[in-house]
Amino acid sequence: MCAVGGGPDDIAREEQFPTAGPDETLERITEFFRSGATAEAIGIGSFGPVDVDPSSPTWGYVTTTPKRGWRHVAVAPVLRDRLAVPVAFDHDVGAAALGEYRWGAGSQARALSYLTVGTGIGAGLLINGKPWHGLIHPEVGHIRIPHDRDRDPFPGVCPMHGDCWEGLASGPAIERRWGKAGSDLPDEHPAWELEAEYLALGILSLVCVFSPDRIVAGGGVMERRGLLEKVRTRLRGLLAGYLETPLLGEEIGAFLVPPALGDRAGVLGAIALAEAALGDAEFSAPRC
Amino acid sequence: MCAVGGGPDDIAREEQFPTAGPDETLERITEFFRSGATAEAIGIGSFGPVDVDPSSPTWGYVTTTPKRGWRHVAVAPVLRDRLAVPVAFDHDVGAAALGEYRWGAGSQARALSYLTVGTGIGAGLLINGKPWHGLIHPEVGHIRIPHDRDRDPFPGVCPMHGDCWEGLASGPAIERRWGKAGSDLPDEHPAWELEAEYLALGILSLVCVFSPDRIVAGGGVMERRGLLEKVRTRLRGLLAGYLETPLLGEEIGAFLVPPALGDRAGVLGAIALAEAALGDAEFSAPRC
Repeated sequence: MCAVGGGPDDIAREEQFPTAGPDETLERITEFFRSGATAEAIGIGSFGPVDVDPSSPTWGYVTTTPKRGWRHVAVAPVLRDRLAVPVAFDHDVGAAALGEYRWGAGSQARALSYLTVGTGIGAGLLINGKPWHGLIHPEVGHIRIPHDRDRDPFPGVCPMHGDCWEGLASGPAIERRWGKAGSDLPDEHPAWELEAEYLALGILSLVCVFSPDRIVAGGGVMERRGLLEKVRTRLRGLLAGYLETPLLGEEIGAFLVPPALGDRAGVLGAIALAEAALGDAEFSAPRC
Repeated sequence: MCAVGGGPDDIAREEQFPTAGPDETLERITEFFRSGATAEAIGIGSFGPVDVDPSSPTWGYVTTTPKRGWRHVAVAPVLRDRLAVPVAFDHDVGAAALGEYRWGAGSQARALSYLTVGTGIGAGLLINGKPWHGLIHPEVGHIRIPHDRDRDPFPGVCPMHGDCWEGLASGPAIERRWGKAGSDLPDEHPAWELEAEYLALGILSLVCVFSPDRIVAGGGVMERRGLLEKVRTRLRGLLAGYLETPLLGEEIGAFLVPPALGDRAGVLGAIALAEAALGDAEFSAPRC
């Protein structure tokens, strides 16, 4: 998704096209930004893993993705060279976190996590509104969670780890396990109890490791009616009152929240990244 | 453990006694600090969960601990009132992280995790040398990891969660599962392969959520010869090359490291906390 603008109410142009191979995709992005009014700076929220370390020789690359043809591919450096504007680069979920923080459901959260559950599972973390990367960047989709093979013999879909969190609970996992897309399963299908269990188990790791103030949970799978409430209930069950704070108790509805920007969090976050790049030519991605 | 001093080579007095009930324990601590040369400030690294939020009315309390008699007990406010000096307060693992960062194996790490595996499992996180708390503070011991009940039918020892990470892999879990203390099990006992598996599974969540630059792994269980190397190997296996950086590959020996301060990390970290309290009377615990 490409857009030129300054925020949710100020989008001058926008275009969406499927991700093809790197050459074709980067060419379409270049064309988009060359036609019409030029962008003063570009922010990129890319699928990952990505290299977001500004001091690295492979800054702005997609790295070890299983996505065909995209391993070790330069993204940000290519667009910066072709378009000759400042470029800021982050993980797609990092950008989405920034979008929700700036204009959506993450505002005011000191320790924000944006979680997406869709074709994959990922989370972006912000500390005081700045992306947190650490050594690489969070890759929560690949943690391991309890997998009861008696209840759920499905082996998982992750090409690298089988039944990691993403392997068990992403959209493709739901589709492969049940033989039809999640969107075609009725609300009362047992898929959703199992999904809520897996999501709560993974979110528990987010809560117990990073201790966020708020988790914005987006992505296609989370749009299922009633799922978020099921996950909240199960998460409270897993915590069993151990972390005694209203936000993990009766106020959990203000802790684990739906996105306000829907599937536009990423592209709007990329605009926020571009603004940051404008403010500082050396800017790559803000670090805590 | 109580000490007066300015660092590892500058300890004027020191005393260790078992934790009894709150009244008796706080009285002994008070006596220690009243006798001999007075401390100018006090840093506390307490078992938890604790309230480390300086704006909270229960700052400095132990909160929802299962430890008998210690639920919702004021610690830091009591010592501050009795001793009339600035008091800084943090979780025990937060203090240990600070000690290793300042004087030990965590120096220079931007994103440091100190992990302890002993009577419980916990981790303190530092960002640029400052404790990271987020909403409460990390409580990694209570995440859930895969538990293959065919291989290991042991139900876990956590009084609140059964087979959470701590319930499966803490020192008491080893002792209860095998019928004797870990220190009495030989190096070649199958306990250690299982322990390495569980530790790697939990550390994977630390890596994939917080993305630390370095993990210092201490506590009594980690003193077992060969265990750390087994955990490193298993962690690389679980990552399966997905996060491509030398520190998670061939240089993992510089990523997952033993402590340099042994069981003195906590008390030395408390001294570092006290120094911070001296610098700022409003200081409670530095927040990122």
